Amino acid sequence: MSSSGKALAIASHVVSGFVGNNVVTFVLQTLGIEVSALNTVQFSNHTGYHQWTGSKVTAEEILQLWKGLKNVTLDDEFDMAITGYVPGDDGVEAVGQIIRELKGRKKALFWLLDPVMGDEGKLYVSESVVPVYRSLVGFADLITPNQYEIEWLTGQAITDRASIHAALQLVHDKFSVPHVIITSIVLPSETSSSTMICAGSSITSPGKSRPFFIEIPVIEGHYRGTGDMFSALTLARFREQVSLVPGLLEVKSWVSPDDVVPTDLPLAKAIEKVLLSMNLLLERTRKVRSERLGKLSEEQKGNRIEQMKAGELRLVQGVMDILRPEQSADLKVFKSQVLEP
Amino acid sequence: MSSSGKALAIASHVVSGFVGNNVVTFVLQTLGIEVSALNTVQFSNHTGYHQWTGSKVTAEEILQLWKGLKNVTLDDEFDMAITGYVPGDDGVEAVGQIIRELKGRKKALFWLLDPVMGDEGKLYVSESVVPVYRSLVGFADLITPNQYEIEWLTGQAITDRASIHAALQLVHDKFSVPHVIITSIVLPSETSSSTMICAGSSITSPGKSRPFFIEIPVIEGHYRGTGDMFSALTLARFREQVSLVPGLLEVKSWVSPDDVVPTDLPLAKAIEKVLLSMNLLLERTRKVRSERLGKLSEEQKGNRIEQMKAGELRLVQGVMDILRPEQSADLKVFKSQVLEP
Repeated sequence: MSSSGKALAIASHVVSGFVGNNVVTFVLQTLGIEVSALNTVQFSNHTGYHQWTGSKVTAEEILQLWKGLKNVTLDDEFDMAITGYVPGDDGVEAVGQIIRELKGRKKALFWLLDPVMGDEGKLYVSESVVPVYRSLVGFADLITPNQYEIEWLTGQAITDRASIHAALQLVHDKFSVPHVIITSIVLPSETSSSTMICAGSSITSPGKSRPFFIEIPVIEGHYRGTGDMFSALTLARFREQVSLVPGLLEVKSWVSPDDVVPTDLPLAKAIEKVLLSMNLLLERTRKVRSERLGKLSEEQKGNRIEQMKAGELRLVQGVMDILRPEQSADLKVFKSQVLEP
Repeated sequence: MSSSGKALAIASHVVSGFVGNNVVTFVLQTLGIEVSALNTVQFSNHTGYHQWTGSKVTAEEILQLWKGLKNVTLDDEFDMAITGYVPGDDGVEAVGQIIRELKGRKKALFWLLDPVMGDEGKLYVSESVVPVYRSLVGFADLITPNQYEIEWLTGQAITDRASIHAALQLVHDKFSVPHVIITSIVLPSETSSSTMICAGSSITSPGKSRPFFIEIPVIEGHYRGTGDMFSALTLARFREQVSLVPGLLEVKSWVSPDDVVPTDLPLAKAIEKVLLSMNLLLERTRKVRSERLGKLSEEQKGNRIEQMKAGELRLVQGVMDILRPEQSADLKVFKSQVLEP
């Protein structure tokens, strides 16, 4: 097949706007990766609007679609899988079954699991989903939880850099997951409120973490779909960095030799580029949002629908931010550093 | 919003492969147009495989999704609509209702209707769909039937250039549709079997056709999704050509002044570029297909599933064929000519 690979993407679909598979498909295809999008819902718009129509795809239907792909041997083309929001514990179970089957084949599969459970202190899936995710994480090659999700998974509260360090090691220890990125961490112990931390690690053969972190500026406003954007960019850029190292794409889970230090990891280099794209795309989105809200009356500005419409990710306009972020900003801005314990 | 516009796309979705909204979304987004994809089915793969799983979205669900968009005023962002395969007469009715509502607003809407009914002498929708399409065609700004579909719509058999000419005029007369493209015509009266004809027309204010045609080479093999690819490319390139003429985007249905001759029409110029992209993309697809089938045993080669897999459109690899076809081939290859009666 194509030299850039083919990914099975399991996430939600909305008619209008950019969240879930709409984001994943656009980002991966822009970066040359073929995508098969199995949609877990079809909603009119994302739930941030607080009202929407449409329906969820049942766990049974998800498995039926998977069976259909197998019937015509289209399943044998996947070398990657990327999964995001899935409604309900039985839906997550269904995804788990698909992944286990894919992992059981001769051909290697790289699975990026975004364990979508909640954010900012709030679980937005039912509590019954958490143990299902815990049971599946061990099959993942890379997980991309946010601060809240990593706390749920590891039981480790994130309060300072030492606890980030501990959480990364715990992911390797508890779940044997080779790669982990904690997408955004706000530390009460750090003084500045204008920066967040993105931290990650790739495991060594004795099971030790290789922790790195990158400081990132906080961009004003809340935007839906950013987690999906991060995951998709990460999958594509990680694969690209791995493909630059002779033979590494053929190594199980793309794990670098033990002598590669944290900041030289393909994962660290990938995330530097991912964060550059993220920063450009979010800044573009923030600008459009601010322009659109600026044209409204004070009353309209307070309207949730207007806020959500104004804040939809500007991906189509930002195709060059995805493709060549280094043309618009300095790659060194988001240099990774070793995270000391 | 974005200066390139936003389109509501109503068509099918398959998990793997490129037909329906998978094609439309990719092509339009690549050309800078925002897309809201309302999926009328979610199937594992296209029906050319002769087996698939998944389900259709009912007419009621289609209207519910539309209601959801209206509830949060996302419907007011559309300035274009593009519709393809819709299952059943009630589904087509639902699409008709959405379009009529969009057409009833103050803001202009341009609707490209691909009246998907059949091909090569075979109807592949139920016969009850035909009268529904006939009743809706009058709301369309541009229709893109194939030879078989134009015959169903107009009752005019296409046997030679004079009958093409007559069919184009009939579309304007019977349905008042301002623009029409007949995507591919094979004439028994013409000697060469290696070329087809693509013909089109934009109406004048007294209701006369401005017919043009372009000869195109036949590319070996059958490929699904080519109609969707043609429609999406046509919508994007037509809008682009129209936007180059000062004020024309604001004219109802983008109809050029009466003194513009057929081969100077924005529609004719758009189709020249569309056909160049189509030719590059299909040639790329044919090559991959032939390579893949070449690796198979004679028995496997005869297998329908293998044939379908090998023949999936290579859109992700052909992004430059979509964006800048003129970089790979001479734009003059597909020069339009006036179609004489």
